[in-house]
Amino acid sequence: MTVESTIIRIATDAKSASGQIAKCSSDKKNKVLLQLSDKIKKEAQYLKNENRNDLLYAKEKGLSDAMIDRLKLTDSTVESMAGGLKDVAKLDDPVGAICKTTIRPNGLEVSRMRIPLGVIGIIYESRPNVTIDAAGLCIKSGNAVILRGGSEAFHSNQALANLVSETLFEAGLPKSTVQVVPVREREAVNILLSQDELIDLVIPRGGEGLIRFVAENSKIPVLKHYKGVCHVYVDKNADINMAKKICFNAKVQRPGVCNAMETMLVDSAIADDFLPEIAKLFSDAGVEIRGCPKTCKVLPEAKAALDSDWGYEYLDLIVSVMIVDGMEQAMAHIAQYGSNHTEAIITSDYARSRRFLREVDASVVLVNASTRFNDGGQLGLGAEMGISTSKLHAFGPMGLEELTTTKFVVCGDGQIRE
Amino acid sequence: MTVESTIIRIATDAKSASGQIAKCSSDKKNKVLLQLSDKIKKEAQYLKNENRNDLLYAKEKGLSDAMIDRLKLTDSTVESMAGGLKDVAKLDDPVGAICKTTIRPNGLEVSRMRIPLGVIGIIYESRPNVTIDAAGLCIKSGNAVILRGGSEAFHSNQALANLVSETLFEAGLPKSTVQVVPVREREAVNILLSQDELIDLVIPRGGEGLIRFVAENSKIPVLKHYKGVCHVYVDKNADINMAKKICFNAKVQRPGVCNAMETMLVDSAIADDFLPEIAKLFSDAGVEIRGCPKTCKVLPEAKAALDSDWGYEYLDLIVSVMIVDGMEQAMAHIAQYGSNHTEAIITSDYARSRRFLREVDASVVLVNASTRFNDGGQLGLGAEMGISTSKLHAFGPMGLEELTTTKFVVCGDGQIRE
Repeated sequence: MTVESTIIRIATDAKSASGQIAKCSSDKKNKVLLQLSDKIKKEAQYLKNENRNDLLYAKEKGLSDAMIDRLKLTDSTVESMAGGLKDVAKLDDPVGAICKTTIRPNGLEVSRMRIPLGVIGIIYESRPNVTIDAAGLCIKSGNAVILRGGSEAFHSNQALANLVSETLFEAGLPKSTVQVVPVREREAVNILLSQDELIDLVIPRGGEGLIRFVAENSKIPVLKHYKGVCHVYVDKNADINMAKKICFNAKVQRPGVCNAMETMLVDSAIADDFLPEIAKLFSDAGVEIRGCPKTCKVLPEAKAALDSDWGYEYLDLIVSVMIVDGMEQAMAHIAQYGSNHTEAIITSDYARSRRFLREVDASVVLVNASTRFNDGGQLGLGAEMGISTSKLHAFGPMGLEELTTTKFVVCGDGQIRE
Repeated sequence: MTVESTIIRIATDAKSASGQIAKCSSDKKNKVLLQLSDKIKKEAQYLKNENRNDLLYAKEKGLSDAMIDRLKLTDSTVESMAGGLKDVAKLDDPVGAICKTTIRPNGLEVSRMRIPLGVIGIIYESRPNVTIDAAGLCIKSGNAVILRGGSEAFHSNQALANLVSETLFEAGLPKSTVQVVPVREREAVNILLSQDELIDLVIPRGGEGLIRFVAENSKIPVLKHYKGVCHVYVDKNADINMAKKICFNAKVQRPGVCNAMETMLVDSAIADDFLPEIAKLFSDAGVEIRGCPKTCKVLPEAKAALDSDWGYEYLDLIVSVMIVDGMEQAMAHIAQYGSNHTEAIITSDYARSRRFLREVDASVVLVNASTRFNDGGQLGLGAEMGISTSKLHAFGPMGLEELTTTKFVVCGDGQIRE
């Protein structure tokens, strides 16, 4: 079988399975998720054995220790995958929910009913836990899913796919509800991305290179974010202690993720008071500061920022700092260098807090809270499939509801159009 | 100036205008709509003069009388454009609306705020009224818009664009909030469709050929429907009088539109009673019936349907009729031949009505009502920009809300992520 025929068969099977999983009751979907959770724990040794093949291959290929670490399945990662499925089982099922019901003057009852999207393709890099997270969210939201993980995690993903298939089969659901692409060839991705008659949505997860590749080569709609260049603007009316706490958290708590702060914008009126204090905290935590000329005057120990530092996603213990003359300049900087991901203001001024929320163009805009809250779990979505910085369909973290759409359902008693 | 540089300048100007119209108050937007409405009525003679150039050109090119009729601006079409703007001014402004507010356990207040999409491109065929309808909906929803009408309506559209520009300018809003592409060259469309950094959404309106061209050549997300192959299933428990009334309305009231019925599916248990009665009505109205073999037995006067009749959009006084053995077969036929647009069941059976609503995959599903109700105005959206049969972002008629998205706004008092 060629790669092309394999992918077309998978996509065709997924399309046909999508009709069945769409109709599946919440009870049954939850039972599948819990059974899969149990099976993953029971088969931990099998998963770790298969994972070992990937680790050997990764070492041969000379992958970095950090990448090998992300790839490795341990008792704790297995436990966390199993726990994640239990969490998803507890979430409300969006499918079938009726909303926005209105009665028209002619008596027609018009509502919207939430329905699955159909077939979702996920293209992601090494971490094998994404396989189970994505499978769980798609099953719960009534979608069929095709998973294409990184080639480094090939054996781990196939092993996880086997457990999912078994569970679906035992529950009387089509195995092809969840499929992992069973070939390593890179051309599989291009072929997958051209199945726009069979696949309804593609979500790439990984580095900017992967995401750009998917966005540029897909005939299917793509939900994505390229990167998170998040700013915190410390207004002149900020509470300095609060600003310190939030900026420190936004930068240091987990610097390698997309919702970490990359640039701090500080109002000139508060810079002399605020900067030395936050700089001390940053210095103790090993954070390198790259400042604009004014910042370097206040903080002689700071490195001078280059033009290329503005709008740069460090994903590391580095922060760029700019002193700005008021909120206007801060918002202009964000408009120019931000990535529509997450932006925050620290202020005790009512009017500026409201204006920042209204006018800043980002999927999550915060007042007096850390950028690290741009996360489906933290914002109350329960779990997330990624974050979208494109505005169509979903803007921000995507939970179960964002994996669905609504159709109009209309109940009449004989109405005709006059 | 080359066509390419013209289009890029238009798109760049639109992007910059989008920031200002996004912030514009409802009062001001409504004032612009009402002023434009007045101006259109006052300048009716100017519009008709410019329209005459298009009509002359259309006659030279030998366009059909039907097309020339759609192109013509009369006092009544001018009046109707002006009236449409007043209606849009009366609708609720979606922008800035706050919804789904929740308080997280840590005290964060998480809401979603409705915001415009940014820049919308509309590509459409001859009717010049679309220019004003689309401009009105985009202004009200806070979006900038680039309009590319059919070359037959070039002068009419330019004239309308002039009135819109004047009105925007008088109100102190950027003229480039609404722009009509000022060149006739066809390559303008391809260049427009590749400005994915500047334009957020493209909506094609017109025949299937135009829509396929846009969908296949756009780098920008497209909301569209190709065609409307709408079925009415007359269940064995249908009220025959209601079924007659609805099927007649769905076929005859306006046969040339996408929500007209193209195929009637009739349960075999009711066919002998129902078919002769509806056939009489159809025959009186000049509707041609193309029936399956069983239908032709009940209605000897019917033409035999060919395979190509199933799933065909006649847009005319023709209906294909199939006798089915129960709802299962009806739903299978719809799944195979439908276009995810509009599907209806006529029944007095509770369980089947519920199952049809849940399981049929269409943007609007109706029980005991005419397919002709798939329309933004009829379903309570106030006005519509078209109908989407793709599930991403919007499924069904698109009103003001579908021209917007939501961002998360988060109000805290110092929360950090633990």
